[in-house]
Amino acid sequence: MAQENLSVVLHSPGDLRLENCPVPEPGPDEVLLQMHSVGICGSDVHYWQHGRIGDFVLNKPMVLGHEASGRVVKVGSAVKHLKVGDRVAIEPGVPREVDEFFKNGRYNLSPTIFFCATPPDDGNLCRFYKHSASFCYKLPDNVTFEEGALIEPLSVGIHACRRAGVTLGSTVLICGSGPIGLCCLLVAKTMGASRVVITDLSSERLTMAKELGADFLLTVKKGDKPQQLAKSVTDLLGAPPHITIECTGSESSIQTAIYATRSGGVVVLVGLGSEMATVPLVNAAVREVDIRGVFRYCNTWPMAIAMLASGKVNVKPLVTHRFPLEEAVQAFETTRQGAGIKVMLKCDQNDQNP
Amino acid sequence: MAQENLSVVLHSPGDLRLENCPVPEPGPDEVLLQMHSVGICGSDVHYWQHGRIGDFVLNKPMVLGHEASGRVVKVGSAVKHLKVGDRVAIEPGVPREVDEFFKNGRYNLSPTIFFCATPPDDGNLCRFYKHSASFCYKLPDNVTFEEGALIEPLSVGIHACRRAGVTLGSTVLICGSGPIGLCCLLVAKTMGASRVVITDLSSERLTMAKELGADFLLTVKKGDKPQQLAKSVTDLLGAPPHITIECTGSESSIQTAIYATRSGGVVVLVGLGSEMATVPLVNAAVREVDIRGVFRYCNTWPMAIAMLASGKVNVKPLVTHRFPLEEAVQAFETTRQGAGIKVMLKCDQNDQNP
Amino acid sequence: MAQENLSVVLHSPGDLRLENCPVPEPGPDEVLLQMHSVGICGSDVHYWQHGRIGDFVLNKPMVLGHEASGRVVKVGSAVKHLKVGDRVAIEPGVPREVDEFFKNGRYNLSPTIFFCATPPDDGNLCRFYKHSASFCYKLPDNVTFEEGALIEPLSVGIHACRRAGVTLGSTVLICGSGPIGLCCLLVAKTMGASRVVITDLSSERLTMAKELGADFLLTVKKGDKPQQLAKSVTDLLGAPPHITIECTGSESSIQTAIYATRSGGVVVLVGLGSEMATVPLVNAAVREVDIRGVFRYCNTWPMAIAMLASGKVNVKPLVTHRFPLEEAVQAFETTRQGAGIKVMLKCDQNDQNP
Amino acid sequence: MAQENLSVVLHSPGDLRLENCPVPEPGPDEVLLQMHSVGICGSDVHYWQHGRIGDFVLNKPMVLGHEASGRVVKVGSAVKHLKVGDRVAIEPGVPREVDEFFKNGRYNLSPTIFFCATPPDDGNLCRFYKHSASFCYKLPDNVTFEEGALIEPLSVGIHACRRAGVTLGSTVLICGSGPIGLCCLLVAKTMGASRVVITDLSSERLTMAKELGADFLLTVKKGDKPQQLAKSVTDLLGAPPHITIECTGSESSIQTAIYATRSGGVVVLVGLGSEMATVPLVNAAVREVDIRGVFRYCNTWPMAIAMLASGKVNVKPLVTHRFPLEEAVQAFETTRQGAGIKVMLKCDQNDQNP
Repeated sequence: MAQENLSVVLHSPGDLRLENCPVPEPGPDEVLLQMHSVGICGSDVHYWQHGRIGDFVLNKPMVLGHEASGRVVKVGSAVKHLKVGDRVAIEPGVPREVDEFFKNGRYNLSPTIFFCATPPDDGNLCRFYKHSASFCYKLPDNVTFEEGALIEPLSVGIHACRRAGVTLGSTVLICGSGPIGLCCLLVAKTMGASRVVITDLSSERLTMAKELGADFLLTVKKGDKPQQLAKSVTDLLGAPPHITIECTGSESSIQTAIYATRSGGVVVLVGLGSEMATVPLVNAAVREVDIRGVFRYCNTWPMAIAMLASGKVNVKPLVTHRFPLEEAVQAFETTRQGAGIKVMLKCDQNDQNP
Repeated sequence: MAQENLSVVLHSPGDLRLENCPVPEPGPDEVLLQMHSVGICGSDVHYWQHGRIGDFVLNKPMVLGHEASGRVVKVGSAVKHLKVGDRVAIEPGVPREVDEFFKNGRYNLSPTIFFCATPPDDGNLCRFYKHSASFCYKLPDNVTFEEGALIEPLSVGIHACRRAGVTLGSTVLICGSGPIGLCCLLVAKTMGASRVVITDLSSERLTMAKELGADFLLTVKKGDKPQQLAKSVTDLLGAPPHITIECTGSESSIQTAIYATRSGGVVVLVGLGSEMATVPLVNAAVREVDIRGVFRYCNTWPMAIAMLASGKVNVKPLVTHRFPLEEAVQAFETTRQGAGIKVMLKCDQNDQNP
Repeated sequence: MAQENLSVVLHSPGDLRLENCPVPEPGPDEVLLQMHSVGICGSDVHYWQHGRIGDFVLNKPMVLGHEASGRVVKVGSAVKHLKVGDRVAIEPGVPREVDEFFKNGRYNLSPTIFFCATPPDDGNLCRFYKHSASFCYKLPDNVTFEEGALIEPLSVGIHACRRAGVTLGSTVLICGSGPIGLCCLLVAKTMGASRVVITDLSSERLTMAKELGADFLLTVKKGDKPQQLAKSVTDLLGAPPHITIECTGSESSIQTAIYATRSGGVVVLVGLGSEMATVPLVNAAVREVDIRGVFRYCNTWPMAIAMLASGKVNVKPLVTHRFPLEEAVQAFETTRQGAGIKVMLKCDQNDQNP
Repeated sequence: MAQENLSVVLHSPGDLRLENCPVPEPGPDEVLLQMHSVGICGSDVHYWQHGRIGDFVLNKPMVLGHEASGRVVKVGSAVKHLKVGDRVAIEPGVPREVDEFFKNGRYNLSPTIFFCATPPDDGNLCRFYKHSASFCYKLPDNVTFEEGALIEPLSVGIHACRRAGVTLGSTVLICGSGPIGLCCLLVAKTMGASRVVITDLSSERLTMAKELGADFLLTVKKGDKPQQLAKSVTDLLGAPPHITIECTGSESSIQTAIYATRSGGVVVLVGLGSEMATVPLVNAAVREVDIRGVFRYCNTWPMAIAMLASGKVNVKPLVTHRFPLEEAVQAFETTRQGAGIKVMLKCDQNDQNP
């Protein structure tokens, strides 16, 4: 293939370029994809601004993007379940080794996993991208490319709700109404949560949460006392929530999460803040409130596709902005400013539909 | 209290009488209830017709009824969480001993449990009934008495789906579209099942299943081969279901359930047939398809109330017939003939509303 | 009964008295016990010294003691499974209400639970004590009274190891070699742990841990860096442990616990320190290391008795000191000084055997 | 490599030949092994006698053997964790596709899995054999090759006990005292079972079970009534067992397993009998006795090695016969006659030690 492959390449903090890269050649277990829709994630923006997240440091130019869907244009010799023309959603993490984590079904924890747009691994914000066929999932006709791309943030919500044990009749507190908080909200309701309280500093974000099904909104102000907020949550629900999903990473919100959760319940940490946090561990321990983190996700694409195909989860309202790939820098700037919820880049010049 | 207490008493097989019983006096941990709505269950009819179910044999007159709700009219001295006037749903099983099952949270398995309308324990198809206050659950204002009474069959569905492990994206086969199959359907969808196939011999029942949310209907004919039916299910879903909930008790349907279920999945046995069944156990074993039974339910009322209050589960269409308590015999006859889905008896002369 | 009932009564911090109390009369669901052996727990000493633990404050005189066994001398009218003469171990926590926690099998979390020697509830360091018969467990002939009393601290170990998910081949780090750390060690090995590393500041305590089966000892010094200690643990085991059971409550040890545990593993918090703790929550979260507390225990006595009867767990070496009840103050002083492991008080004047 | 590779090849039922095969060349992710010890399994004998097991049919010559250990003699280019000279145990099942089962941690259920000596896949009863390096596990110095080979049958026991949920204080009934029953016994005790009852038709086999730690032996005679046997088990244990592991596959023993198991417990089906079985399903269902099968195993080698290395499991007594590879036919004949427990073939001419 001698086509051009326009790609969004981060060279160093602040230095984001659109440039042509070679079209890759898929290996025997891979497929080549013509990219269609790629969402911009907060982590993409963070790498752009800071060049690193925790121990992951940008040391050489890297293609951004990992919330993605596309169409199969070439199929590796050993691939059986996909064919040219198939529309697929891309799971961005692909384990490189069959280690204990992979064998145990928790491949997201494999320390050598490939992950799109985590240094040094390239992402898929480009025209053509190759990926392990086993981690490309065929989309049914009634699921759009953008829904396919949104499976990535939705998967964070699925993994969080699954680790939380959300089930029929669960009451849930979600701290933070950003894209991830909203995905947790959608998933929690779909898994049977009876009531969800969601918090945020911004009343605009809470309005969107209301539209997506939140039962109670709680506007938080800087300086609010965690124990007081916990009491407010109990007042809204009539009892403490079984589960709290913390999506802000702020220390005071983690404190609120612990105080708020019912004895025997679960706090899931999705948001990441500073390395060390001061929290009421004794309060959690003596009430057997478990504290569980999530690292990305595993085994979520098939169930996400099933839910989207059944129409039981509607992620379409999350997309508030669209840009053609050529305008990637403006798209990143829009995301950085926090406008809307999800900015989608359209990578296929001939099809910019959702 | 010198009031009369009209009660539906089964004296012997076929001998069902309406007669006045004393109004009971609640003990310190009990409440006296003025009964409002009581559904007729297949087991009530079975006792009426046969005087026994398995090892449970009617040896003395017994009040029938166990799908019930009412209003608190008297409160025992040690009861704290209820007061006169509260509208409550009644969990009919009350453990008598703090044995290993009760301590472990599976009190439904306690061999000495009290259970309404299981010989020799009286049920609550009457005007006034006393019950352990800990097993009476206050209904929110937006949940009707009839919904409260329907928590009992709904609980069978909850317990079955919970034992099955229904979760986000599960595909489910439900064998049988009677009241219990329909409750399993409602619950499975609410817990996140993406697609449900439901079967029955009767196309009328399947029509109701369709209205309640079934994705695929499969009409079964006597003599259909289990392996062929299993294949039909796979064809409908595109892959074998993760979970099968068997609600008929027929041997061939249990066989279908095993053949149909995906490797690593679960078959839940809700329907009860003959004591011995011939089934393809090797097929289940080598594919690690687990076979799990259910005995009634435990810990379901609070989550059922939460779901009804949130409006996420709509059981109201299940009630197809209503009779005043005085016409209990006609109501039982209607149930025996299999008309409609659920027949509700109205026990409060002054309030026959839902 | 007009017998005297010598009891160890705490009147206020530092004011521990031996005095005669009335012999209680068992209710219908209770048994009266002639106490035989009662161990002194760190919490007993803490109440003696400080008059409070967290929110539990001594406001009136209270009998101490909750690690206990005795002999049935009187049986309530409704009790079926015990008779006069039975030797029993006493589970000190008895739920007062059939609330959601009790129904769900986690009765230890019931906020209104009765618990021996937690204010305001009296303990059983006395000659005669009445208790709920359902929470008295008959001892087989080959289990001594002292083993029966030691089921209480052993239960902490069982509950911690069960919450940790210790299973075949688990590698375990236990922080702290006091009585609870040693009980965790015994239980972890019995549940199939392949290797256990245990830490302490005191080399004497570690020697006892070695005798009880610890595979590796790690002497900790004040000021040791948590990440360095974590590395030492990995060096000893060849890989990070699947599970860490933290029994000291010190902040630096909790930090060590998090850093040391393998991705996807579990940290169980048994030791309780200051209300707020500064810990590397992000490190735990992104490696999906769950943090779980324990509050006492539930459903442990039957399995503990089974293990003691089978000879698979040997708790006898834990008893290093014995005093007659009359010398309770010396016994408390001995415990306060940290001599030995477990001090046992002998309450039966006619039988001071183990 | 131009060495000869003496191999045990099954050509058709009854036609077992020792013949020279080419020494294979390992691929990039593989290692070449010089085989040391290979146990003979009942399934090897069954293929020899009948040419098939269920749907697996011998259609072309196949090397037998899958309970194996050996030494690395050549390392594929991509292999990192093994080097020439390493002693390894071989997990015979290697998934070929990264399908839903592999991703979920249940790769044993992957329908396209490679499995040694299951048609058409060759086994490792030979001098030189290549295998996926990810499924070869390095043996510590204190674990012998024969122990390494015995990890395969031990893994069946581990998987069965894990699926059964054996834990501290479990009481267990094991039906059948063949090599698999004995492995289940060893594992159950190591996972904390307090008491194990084991059954067999043969008192000799039961004697071996006694030596390996069984608490109670129950000699079964053909024609014994399942319900009567169940009662005998309860009499021995004082209560029904929490768990039954059925290793015979006989219909009457499966019936015994169901009747014998405590309400809320688990029956694991390890033995495989005729395709259809007549069993008391209603009895199991209404007591919530779960019926779970096992298909081989997954994720067992690391924990098995950990246990062998720790000395907590002693499998050495299982080896009762040894033959050099050259005498494979006699070895198979010995196994067929049911003499002893485990027959080991020694494949390395220069090292026939355990």
